[in-house]
Amino acid sequence: MKTKLRSKIWLESNGGKIFGDGPCELLEKIDRMGSLRKAATDMKMSYRQAWDLVKMLEENLGISLLERQAGGRAGGGSSLTGEGKKIMCRYKKFRHEATISMETLFNQYFGAPFD
Amino acid sequence: MKTKLRSKIWLESNGGKIFGDGPCELLEKIDRMGSLRKAATDMKMSYRQAWDLVKMLEENLGISLLERQAGGRAGGGSSLTGEGKKIMCRYKKFRHEATISMETLFNQYFGAPFD
Repeated sequence: MKTKLRSKIWLESNGGKIFGDGPCELLEKIDRMGSLRKAATDMKMSYRQAWDLVKMLEENLGISLLERQAGGRAGGGSSLTGEGKKIMCRYKKFRHEATISMETLFNQYFGAPFD
Repeated sequence: MKTKLRSKIWLESNGGKIFGDGPCELLEKIDRMGSLRKAATDMKMSYRQAWDLVKMLEENLGISLLERQAGGRAGGGSSLTGEGKKIMCRYKKFRHEATISMETLFNQYFGAPFD
Protein backbone atom coordinates (compact mmCIF):
# COMPACT_ATOMS: atom_id res chain seq x y z
CA MET A 1 0.00 0.00 0.00
CA LYS A 2 1.49 3.34 -1.08
CA THR A 3 0.31 5.77 1.56
CA LYS A 4 0.55 9.51 1.04
CA LEU A 5 0.48 12.25 3.63
CA ARG A 6 -1.91 15.12 2.98
CA SER A 7 -2.38 18.27 5.02
CA LYS A 8 -4.06 21.64 5.17
CA ILE A 9 -2.56 24.51 7.12
CA TRP A 10 -4.01 27.88 7.98
CA LEU A 11 -3.47 30.73 10.41
CA GLU A 12 -6.18 32.07 12.68
CA SER A 13 -6.53 35.15 14.78
CA ASN A 14 -9.50 35.67 17.08
CA GLY A 15 -11.08 32.57 15.56
CA GLY A 16 -10.97 33.98 12.01
CA LYS A 17 -8.77 32.71 9.19
CA ILE A 18 -6.08 35.20 8.30
CA PHE A 19 -3.93 33.23 5.89
CA GLY A 20 -3.26 29.70 4.74
CA ASP A 21 -2.77 27.34 1.81
CA GLY A 22 -5.77 28.62 -0.17
CA PRO A 23 -5.06 32.37 0.20
CA CYS A 24 -1.40 31.76 -0.61
CA GLU A 25 -2.33 29.92 -3.80
CA LEU A 26 -4.61 32.77 -4.82
CA LEU A 27 -1.88 35.38 -4.26
CA GLU A 28 0.62 33.26 -6.20
CA LYS A 29 -1.74 33.09 -9.17
CA ILE A 30 -2.48 36.82 -9.05
CA ASP A 31 1.25 37.46 -8.97
CA ARG A 32 1.84 35.19 -11.97
CA MET A 33 -1.21 36.15 -14.02
CA GLY A 34 -1.38 39.83 -13.13
CA SER A 35 -5.14 39.58 -12.73
CA LEU A 36 -7.51 38.78 -9.89
CA ARG A 37 -10.14 37.67 -12.40
CA LYS A 38 -7.84 35.17 -14.13
CA ALA A 39 -6.50 33.92 -10.81
CA ALA A 40 -10.06 33.41 -9.51
CA THR A 41 -11.06 31.45 -12.63
CA ASP A 42 -7.96 29.31 -12.30
CA MET A 43 -8.92 28.56 -8.69
CA LYS A 44 -12.49 27.72 -9.77
CA MET A 45 -13.73 30.63 -7.67
CA SER A 46 -16.04 33.41 -8.78
CA TYR A 47 -14.50 36.86 -9.12
CA ARG A 48 -16.65 37.95 -6.21
CA GLN A 49 -15.50 35.12 -3.94
CA ALA A 50 -11.86 35.89 -4.68
CA TRP A 51 -12.43 39.59 -4.13
CA ASP A 52 -14.20 38.98 -0.82
CA LEU A 53 -11.39 36.68 0.30
CA VAL A 54 -8.74 39.28 -0.49
CA LYS A 55 -10.73 41.99 1.31
CA MET A 56 -11.18 39.76 4.37
CA LEU A 57 -7.48 38.91 4.47
CA GLU A 58 -6.52 42.57 4.12
CA GLU A 59 -8.83 43.52 6.93
CA ASN A 60 -7.72 40.74 9.28
CA LEU A 61 -4.03 41.19 8.51
CA GLY A 62 -4.26 44.97 8.58
CA ILE A 63 -2.22 45.25 5.39
CA SER A 64 -2.93 45.94 1.74
CA LEU A 65 -2.33 42.91 -0.50
CA LEU A 66 -3.32 44.05 -3.98
CA GLU A 67 -2.86 47.10 -6.08
CA ARG A 68 -4.97 47.80 -9.10
CA GLN A 69 -3.28 48.62 -12.37
CA ALA A 70 -5.09 51.22 -14.44
CA GLY A 71 -6.62 50.36 -17.83
CA GLY A 72 -4.58 50.79 -20.99
CA ARG A 73 -4.74 48.35 -23.88
CA ALA A 74 -4.42 45.29 -21.62
CA GLY A 75 -7.49 46.45 -19.70
CA GLY A 76 -5.72 46.84 -16.36
CA GLY A 77 -5.19 44.15 -13.79
CA SER A 78 -4.01 43.46 -10.28
CA SER A 79 -0.61 42.94 -8.79
CA LEU A 80 0.65 42.26 -5.30
CA THR A 81 1.84 45.06 -3.06
CA GLY A 82 5.26 44.75 -1.44
CA GLU A 83 3.58 43.58 1.75
CA GLY A 84 1.48 41.11 -0.21
CA LYS A 85 4.61 39.60 -1.76
CA LYS A 86 6.31 39.47 1.61
CA ILE A 87 3.62 37.48 3.33
CA MET A 88 3.21 35.18 0.32
CA CYS A 89 6.95 34.44 0.24
CA ARG A 90 7.17 34.00 3.97
CA TYR A 91 4.22 31.63 4.02
CA LYS A 92 5.55 29.63 1.05
CA LYS A 93 8.88 29.10 2.78
CA PHE A 94 7.16 28.15 6.02
CA ARG A 95 4.80 25.78 4.17
CA HIS A 96 7.64 24.17 2.26
CA GLU A 97 9.59 23.47 5.44
CA ALA A 98 6.48 22.29 7.28
CA THR A 99 5.76 19.82 4.45
CA ILE A 100 9.31 18.47 4.49
CA SER A 101 9.27 18.11 8.25
CA MET A 102 5.90 16.30 8.23
CA GLU A 103 7.05 13.99 5.41
CA THR A 104 10.16 13.12 7.39
CA LEU A 105 8.12 12.28 10.47
CA PHE A 106 5.58 10.43 8.37
CA ASN A 107 8.31 8.21 6.92
CA GLN A 108 9.64 7.54 10.39
CA TYR A 109 6.24 6.50 11.68
CA PHE A 110 4.58 5.03 8.62
CA GLY A 111 7.44 4.09 6.34
CA ALA A 112 6.88 0.48 7.29
CA PRO A 113 3.47 -1.19 6.93
CA PHE A 114 1.01 -0.81 9.79
CA ASP A 115 2.27 -3.75 11.77
CA MET B 1 -2.30 40.18 16.80
CA LYS B 2 -2.12 36.72 18.40
CA THR B 3 -1.92 34.37 15.46
CA LYS B 4 -2.50 30.64 15.87
CA LEU B 5 -1.48 27.84 13.58
CA ARG B 6 -4.17 25.33 12.66
CA SER B 7 -3.81 22.20 10.58
CA LYS B 8 -5.53 19.08 9.37
CA ILE B 9 -3.60 15.97 8.47
CA TRP B 10 -4.74 12.77 6.82
CA LEU B 11 -3.32 9.77 5.00
CA GLU B 12 -4.42 8.73 1.55
CA SER B 13 -3.93 5.63 -0.50
CA ASN B 14 -5.14 5.40 -4.10
CA GLY B 15 -6.87 8.74 -3.63
CA GLY B 16 -8.96 7.49 -0.67
CA LYS B 17 -8.58 8.58 2.95
CA ILE B 18 -7.23 5.77 5.08
CA PHE B 19 -6.57 7.55 8.37
CA GLY B 20 -6.20 11.01 9.86
CA ASP B 21 -7.14 13.40 12.65
CA GLY B 22 -10.87 12.60 12.52
CA PRO B 23 -10.58 8.80 12.47
CA CYS B 24 -7.97 8.94 15.23
CA GLU B 25 -10.27 11.01 17.42
CA LEU B 26 -13.09 8.53 16.85
CA LEU B 27 -10.88 5.56 17.81
CA GLU B 28 -9.67 7.42 20.92
CA LYS B 29 -13.24 8.00 22.05
CA ILE B 30 -14.25 4.38 21.38
CA ASP B 31 -11.24 3.27 23.38
CA ARG B 32 -12.14 5.56 26.29
CA MET B 33 -15.92 5.10 26.23
CA GLY B 34 -16.04 1.46 25.22
CA SER B 35 -18.85 2.18 22.82
CA LEU B 36 -19.10 3.16 19.16
CA ARG B 37 -22.49 4.72 19.81
CA LYS B 38 -21.26 6.96 22.63
CA ALA B 39 -18.14 7.90 20.69
CA ALA B 40 -20.25 8.81 17.64
CA THR B 41 -22.56 10.99 19.73
CA ASP B 42 -19.57 12.70 21.29
CA MET B 43 -18.22 13.44 17.79
CA LYS B 44 -21.63 14.77 16.72
CA MET B 45 -21.86 11.97 14.17
CA SER B 46 -24.72 9.56 13.69
CA TYR B 47 -24.09 5.96 14.69
CA ARG B 48 -24.38 5.05 11.03
CA GLN B 49 -21.78 7.62 9.93
CA ALA B 50 -19.32 6.40 12.55
CA TRP B 51 -19.97 2.77 11.63
CA ASP B 52 -19.48 3.48 7.92
CA LEU B 53 -16.26 5.35 8.66
CA VAL B 54 -14.87 2.46 10.69
CA LYS B 55 -15.84 -0.04 7.97
CA MET B 56 -14.21 2.10 5.28
CA LEU B 57 -11.01 2.45 7.33
CA GLU B 58 -10.92 -1.30 8.00
CA GLU B 59 -11.36 -2.03 4.33
CA ASN B 60 -8.76 0.48 3.15
CA LEU B 61 -6.23 -0.45 5.83
CA GLY B 62 -6.88 -4.15 5.48
CA ILE B 63 -7.06 -4.57 9.24
CA SER B 64 -9.76 -5.01 11.83
CA LEU B 65 -10.13 -2.01 14.16
CA LEU B 66 -13.05 -2.86 16.43
CA GLU B 67 -14.27 -5.86 18.29
CA ARG B 68 -17.76 -6.15 19.58
CA GLN B 69 -18.30 -7.06 23.22
CA ALA B 70 -21.26 -9.30 23.85
CA GLY B 71 -24.26 -8.11 25.85
CA GLY B 72 -24.40 -8.66 29.58
CA ARG B 73 -25.83 -6.11 31.97
CA ALA B 74 -23.99 -3.18 30.36
CA GLY B 75 -25.58 -4.08 27.01
CA GLY B 76 -22.29 -4.81 25.25
CA GLY B 77 -20.08 -2.30 23.50
CA SER B 78 -17.06 -1.92 21.27
CA SER B 79 -13.37 -1.92 21.98
CA LEU B 80 -10.30 -1.54 19.82
CA THR B 81 -8.45 -4.56 18.52
CA GLY B 82 -4.71 -4.77 19.12
CA GLU B 83 -4.14 -3.51 15.58
CA GLY B 84 -6.62 -0.72 16.12
CA LYS B 85 -4.74 0.42 19.22
CA LYS B 86 -1.44 0.18 17.39
CA ILE B 87 -2.42 2.45 14.52
CA MET B 88 -4.13 4.90 16.89
CA CYS B 89 -1.03 5.13 19.10
CA ARG B 90 1.31 5.40 16.18
CA TYR B 91 -0.75 8.13 14.55
CA LYS B 92 -1.06 10.06 17.85
CA LYS B 93 2.71 10.09 18.30
CA PHE B 94 3.23 11.12 14.70
CA ARG B 95 0.58 13.85 15.00
CA HIS B 96 2.04 15.16 18.24
CA GLU B 97 5.51 15.46 16.74
CA ALA B 98 4.16 16.97 13.54
CA THR B 99 2.29 19.62 15.55
CA ILE B 100 5.40 20.50 17.57
CA SER B 101 7.53 20.71 14.46
CA MET B 102 4.99 22.94 12.67
CA GLU B 103 4.66 25.19 15.72
CA THR B 104 8.42 25.57 15.88
CA LEU B 105 8.60 26.54 12.21
CA PHE B 106 5.59 28.79 12.60
CA ASN B 107 7.30 30.68 15.42
CA GLN B 108 10.43 31.03 13.34
CA TYR B 109 8.52 32.46 10.40
CA PHE B 110 5.64 34.26 12.04
CA GLY B 111 6.81 34.91 15.59
CA ALA B 112 7.38 38.52 14.62
CA PRO B 113 4.59 40.62 13.09
CA PHE B 114 4.16 40.45 9.31
CA ASP B 115 6.73 43.07 8.49
